[in-house]
Amino acid sequence: MELVLPLARYIEQYRYKYLALYHALREAIHAGTLEVGSRLPASRELAELYGVSRGSVSQAYEMLVAEGYLKATVGRGTFVAGLMQGMREKQSGSHAFPLSAWGARIQADLDSELSLAAGSLDLVAKPRISFADGGAALDAKSASDWKSALAYAGRAARAGAKGRNTATADVFGDAGLRAAIAAHLRRSRGIQADPKDICLFSGSMQALALLTQLMLGEGEQAVVEDPGYPGIFRAVRACGGKVLPAAVDASGMVPQEWDARLLFVTPGRQFPTGAVLSASRRRELLAWAQRKEAIIIEDDYDSEFRWGGRPLEPLRALDREGRVVFIGSFTNTMFTSLRIGYALVPPNVAAILRSAKMLYEPTSPALLEQRALARFMVRGDYDKHLRRMRRIYHARYDYLCELLSSGIAGQLFEILPSDTGLHLYAKWRRSPREFADFQRACAYHKVDIRDAVRYQYSSGDPAACFLFPHLDEKELREGVQLMLESWALVQQGRMK
Amino acid sequence: MELVLPLARYIEQYRYKYLALYHALREAIHAGTLEVGSRLPASRELAELYGVSRGSVSQAYEMLVAEGYLKATVGRGTFVAGLMQGMREKQSGSHAFPLSAWGARIQADLDSELSLAAGSLDLVAKPRISFADGGAALDAKSASDWKSALAYAGRAARAGAKGRNTATADVFGDAGLRAAIAAHLRRSRGIQADPKDICLFSGSMQALALLTQLMLGEGEQAVVEDPGYPGIFRAVRACGGKVLPAAVDASGMVPQEWDARLLFVTPGRQFPTGAVLSASRRRELLAWAQRKEAIIIEDDYDSEFRWGGRPLEPLRALDREGRVVFIGSFTNTMFTSLRIGYALVPPNVAAILRSAKMLYEPTSPALLEQRALARFMVRGDYDKHLRRMRRIYHARYDYLCELLSSGIAGQLFEILPSDTGLHLYAKWRRSPREFADFQRACAYHKVDIRDAVRYQYSSGDPAACFLFPHLDEKELREGVQLMLESWALVQQGRMK
Repeated sequence: MELVLPLARYIEQYRYKYLALYHALREAIHAGTLEVGSRLPASRELAELYGVSRGSVSQAYEMLVAEGYLKATVGRGTFVAGLMQGMREKQSGSHAFPLSAWGARIQADLDSELSLAAGSLDLVAKPRISFADGGAALDAKSASDWKSALAYAGRAARAGAKGRNTATADVFGDAGLRAAIAAHLRRSRGIQADPKDICLFSGSMQALALLTQLMLGEGEQAVVEDPGYPGIFRAVRACGGKVLPAAVDASGMVPQEWDARLLFVTPGRQFPTGAVLSASRRRELLAWAQRKEAIIIEDDYDSEFRWGGRPLEPLRALDREGRVVFIGSFTNTMFTSLRIGYALVPPNVAAILRSAKMLYEPTSPALLEQRALARFMVRGDYDKHLRRMRRIYHARYDYLCELLSSGIAGQLFEILPSDTGLHLYAKWRRSPREFADFQRACAYHKVDIRDAVRYQYSSGDPAACFLFPHLDEKELREGVQLMLESWALVQQGRMK
Repeated sequence: MELVLPLARYIEQYRYKYLALYHALREAIHAGTLEVGSRLPASRELAELYGVSRGSVSQAYEMLVAEGYLKATVGRGTFVAGLMQGMREKQSGSHAFPLSAWGARIQADLDSELSLAAGSLDLVAKPRISFADGGAALDAKSASDWKSALAYAGRAARAGAKGRNTATADVFGDAGLRAAIAAHLRRSRGIQADPKDICLFSGSMQALALLTQLMLGEGEQAVVEDPGYPGIFRAVRACGGKVLPAAVDASGMVPQEWDARLLFVTPGRQFPTGAVLSASRRRELLAWAQRKEAIIIEDDYDSEFRWGGRPLEPLRALDREGRVVFIGSFTNTMFTSLRIGYALVPPNVAAILRSAKMLYEPTSPALLEQRALARFMVRGDYDKHLRRMRRIYHARYDYLCELLSSGIAGQLFEILPSDTGLHLYAKWRRSPREFADFQRACAYHKVDIRDAVRYQYSSGDPAACFLFPHLDEKELREGVQLMLESWALVQQGRMK
């Protein structure tokens, strides 16, 4: 059988070759180009034909078999299965409601995410140790202070409303919390912030998505770090915008004369590599934004737990032109289920952001937690919490670095040093194939690591992220030990 | 001076004539068509020239004077003022950041809203009695039960996370609350709901806006009740969609063979008139949706406090085709600052809604309040709360009806009867001019009523909304008394 697939087009759309192949085959089956009952080439043949790895072909085949599009018969090969009635119905059902252009882009992203999830290797059911999932938390002292702050906020709400609970907050959120954030930014970052220009969000992703939607037109380009935060890739794609990937090195994002008016950057600690953006590059980015009349979105997602290095001024503090939006979050500094983030915007952006936010949330939600957080900050509990947690996290970071750089672990991973943050980024020193085998072995041993491929917009070298703040020394040791046992399995050739 | 303004185009865009005139003049000044120093026609002349009321012209002139575009000199007339430097700078500043097509629509809406607010008459600073602002609240018993529920949710979070607070909810929100809502819908509305298809939102407006964005393409039409909820008008405009206004009578929305695939309706209690959608019209709407492969968004914003009439089955309960999204909220039943709403979507919409919501909020916010509300419902506190408040609100509704339909008040307003809900809708029996005078007099007497013009998409007859749940009998009496005093002022010719 001669199989002609427009694979290049699919690779452009789906980035991952196995995913591109999966979609190309799936649509060929739907279109009837690949007829029911026809035999597919062996994975080796197809791999040679299209210049992709045999693993990619196998993975695409496996996904299509799992979904019932293909049928594999031992000793005979892989065949196009008859489309089941249920599948047809499901498909017609999925088109029976109206969909905007925006909705269609969300649907396309959903399709590729579902496929990614189907092909994902780094999710372990109930791992013994997870380096992939986990975040900041409150210690006993902070938990007790937080409880008091919540109780205070509840009492204040009842008293203020004289038993009526009708008080609502401005669309930008509780005024007290915005003032507390402004004070914190002045003290800890040297940023002169007017609370009027601070908008609270249900987590920083909401701020990123809404600002992108406000500023990025269909077909326009946005500069994004590569590797970077996939939420930003998604936000850009949802608007119909184009991701302009920017290279990242040991000094952070590498400036260029991009043709764009929107740029996302994580200067305090590049996500996910941990690099700090150099002072000269900060100035270069600001000069670029000025030339292009562009907006820089400075995502300060993870700079509170600094244990070394000199703190550099945020772009927002250096900005004299109103070109920088500064985004922060309490999810990474307080606890994961506290979805409070904020954006400090240039004064002339505040009015339109207010109008945009009002469309979705005419009054600010989660008011109780906002007011509790304001109380927690004003009383000084937040600063004390940061100081205590910084010590704890620093010790855990150092210990994990030590474990991962010594002995056999040191032959597997190369740690990229970082002086702040809640995860450790490490390059895999060996082959991509061994990395895939290693991850399967880790799944077997119930230790969960985060494959950094999800952060790569263009293809990059294998790497992993290790989230550590939720793990004590014993757990860190156990996790690394499980990884070493996993690697032993690979060495014994038992994960092929 | 011969003044030629393309007013029809502006009226189409801004709906209100004074607003259309305001924008037409403003842009003519910017464009230089109206030169600095030139004299404008007297308001009477301009009114005749363009077939608008003299009041509209005066209001547009006043707004432009207030903004410095025009200068009025007693005895000489109204002139185009020189554009101030600051104004120019502000304007160039407001274009110095990138704006998407979506952002530009938000900006246009913002401009007209600011103007509306400038011309608004129904906002009284610190009113003695406000029928315009106020909503549901907890009584002492419910406040105490809610406090317990919050404490329980806090303890459960701490115990469940073993001191780590890392637990986060699914993007659709807390599973316990979704199950409690499903049970409530089954019991109180006859709706068979799968919690998997229930997505929690930060208030119902977030649900309305996101679903509109998902389903309504640029240039496409959406059917909206007129009068109706302005948030929906805004959501449709933000997507670049067109509002197709549907007439409303005493049996609710009047069905037609609309050319559209998205329709918004408030069957339980039409917003704002209070009409209940008849059973035959419910069937007609569903048949229409089936023919058009359309989605009906059933906004059940205010049906919990029913004190009369037979409850009709919600569209969602009658729907056999997966054509209805059912939207509910706790803001109107619990208290105003509790921003928890939800959408029950057809099963095939759930996946894409999940993906769309994830873009903004990868995990659900306000988890503490979600869990507290689940507890409050599961323990039966919610049903008891509804029963108690229903009695209280019913008594207040009856009392306000009595006050407004007797004596002189009865000569001013015609109440549209309603057997549920937290506000009363009344048509103004006299002339529009007298209504404007009356509102000014009410402002003087510090009693705040809500002008229903904001709910009219096309122009309609003068009407007012009276929000009453936050007012006891004494306050209701005082409010109506202040209105009667206001009307006396108008009668004395003192509000011209």
